[in-house]
Amino acid sequence: MTKLLNGVDCKNKLKIKLKNKITKIKDKLSITVISVGNNEASKIYIKNKIKECNSINIECKHLHYEKTTTNELIKVIKKLNKDKNTTGILVQLPLPKNINEKLVINSIDKLKDIDGLTETNIAKLYNNEPGIIPCTAKGIIDLLDFYNIELVGKNITIIGRSNLVGKPLFHSLLNKNATVTLCHSKTKNLKSITKKSDIIIVAVGKPNLITNDMVRKNSIIIDVGINRINGKICGDVDFKKVAKKCEYITPVPGGVGPMTVYEVLSNTLDCYKIQQNKNIR
Amino acid sequence: MTKLLNGVDCKNKLKIKLKNKITKIKDKLSITVISVGNNEASKIYIKNKIKECNSINIECKHLHYEKTTTNELIKVIKKLNKDKNTTGILVQLPLPKNINEKLVINSIDKLKDIDGLTETNIAKLYNNEPGIIPCTAKGIIDLLDFYNIELVGKNITIIGRSNLVGKPLFHSLLNKNATVTLCHSKTKNLKSITKKSDIIIVAVGKPNLITNDMVRKNSIIIDVGINRINGKICGDVDFKKVAKKCEYITPVPGGVGPMTVYEVLSNTLDCYKIQQNKNIR
Repeated sequence: MTKLLNGVDCKNKLKIKLKNKITKIKDKLSITVISVGNNEASKIYIKNKIKECNSINIECKHLHYEKTTTNELIKVIKKLNKDKNTTGILVQLPLPKNINEKLVINSIDKLKDIDGLTETNIAKLYNNEPGIIPCTAKGIIDLLDFYNIELVGKNITIIGRSNLVGKPLFHSLLNKNATVTLCHSKTKNLKSITKKSDIIIVAVGKPNLITNDMVRKNSIIIDVGINRINGKICGDVDFKKVAKKCEYITPVPGGVGPMTVYEVLSNTLDCYKIQQNKNIR
Repeated sequence: MTKLLNGVDCKNKLKIKLKNKITKIKDKLSITVISVGNNEASKIYIKNKIKECNSINIECKHLHYEKTTTNELIKVIKKLNKDKNTTGILVQLPLPKNINEKLVINSIDKLKDIDGLTETNIAKLYNNEPGIIPCTAKGIIDLLDFYNIELVGKNITIIGRSNLVGKPLFHSLLNKNATVTLCHSKTKNLKSITKKSDIIIVAVGKPNLITNDMVRKNSIIIDVGINRINGKICGDVDFKKVAKKCEYITPVPGGVGPMTVYEVLSNTLDCYKIQQNKNIR
């Protein structure tokens, strides 16, 4: 029978352990989320982050700007970099087009980079050195680990090569000794690749991209997609049919999403530990 | 008939173009190679680099230390970083074990990082932004381009995940819109993966790792291996048999090797251009 990879259950159980660790720290962990403009999805994500942080005794401040410039944002971040009471800094993406996203992200102190998107943390992941790993990639690794799914030598196909999911996931899985193929919009014969995969991870944003005939029996399916059809949320996988064929599958919602939120909390503790020169792996 | 991807020919032709560009620059390009200890292979590589630089009017200085420390090396590099007459800096690897290779490499100014191994240049490659790309990876891309081999949507398998070849090559090919699989020592059923590949690139250091039965008809084989058997140099591919089956193949020697040497020269010009705020792509 197909088993669900239950992100809500996993998150809740990992959160209890994380809360215990945070309780033992004498310093108060505190993060600052910075947002610019009027993105509706961002508002929901930020509200969610604040709620989650509060539930685990992490302070979460929110700095919002209706309009601002690259230089102004960098000034704010540099001030937070120096502030001893700020454990982590998170810039909510996307930023408005007038702002140079790269410059802003890279102005974050690598030790406070909760999203793991600065050049230093990218290079650390690439070099398989301890560092902060982007939340969705780390969430998927933790979810697979929670269900004791072996990764060494497994043939894994990732579909989607974004900097937030596909690329960091590629290196996270490679670092776990999986054999990884990274597919994208220019890939030909996607089906011939997914058919041979032990694990398929899809992060594209196209409903029903992964159909029954593309999946090997007893494979494992991780669906990162979040799409809205007639007000209902679904992923990139034809869930009903694929679920009958595979061994494990993530539901949408309730799969990868909760894990991404959990990793914001987990990465905050990692940032704190790195700042204290403590081991994080 | 199988065609050879002739690295010597490609290098010679690209070098003429490069020399023309360098001649037009009023500044003298100058690189410094730093080596430590007594590695015999390194001595040959450095001698080769000096010869190649001289042939194209690039000055090549060599700083050699029998013994030194991480701090001393970093001091030397920081001085070169500031020196206006130094276009590029190259630390010959491997360094002796008492030296922290990562710290030394990352002390090189990203604008003078001919080998493309600093964290900043790694992140630029990962993010598909203009930067300095490690020489062997860039050499393979240029060799494929020289022979007009299309990469978009091609299924490419890389075997070997080193920071010098496998990983930068993965991103270079991904940035060219290929679908790339990265294999390594923990990969299971390598043959089932190579059999489905349009292009196979092997950089492991094991003679005859890639045999006739692992290769699809009319595929393209890039052999990065350099092995010595009974005083003769060979690659990682069973050349005689595989050459009969594939469309293109690199010889060893005379395939990827010359291209790596060429890219030291090409990256020196790229460093100069970046320092002048000029476009390199």
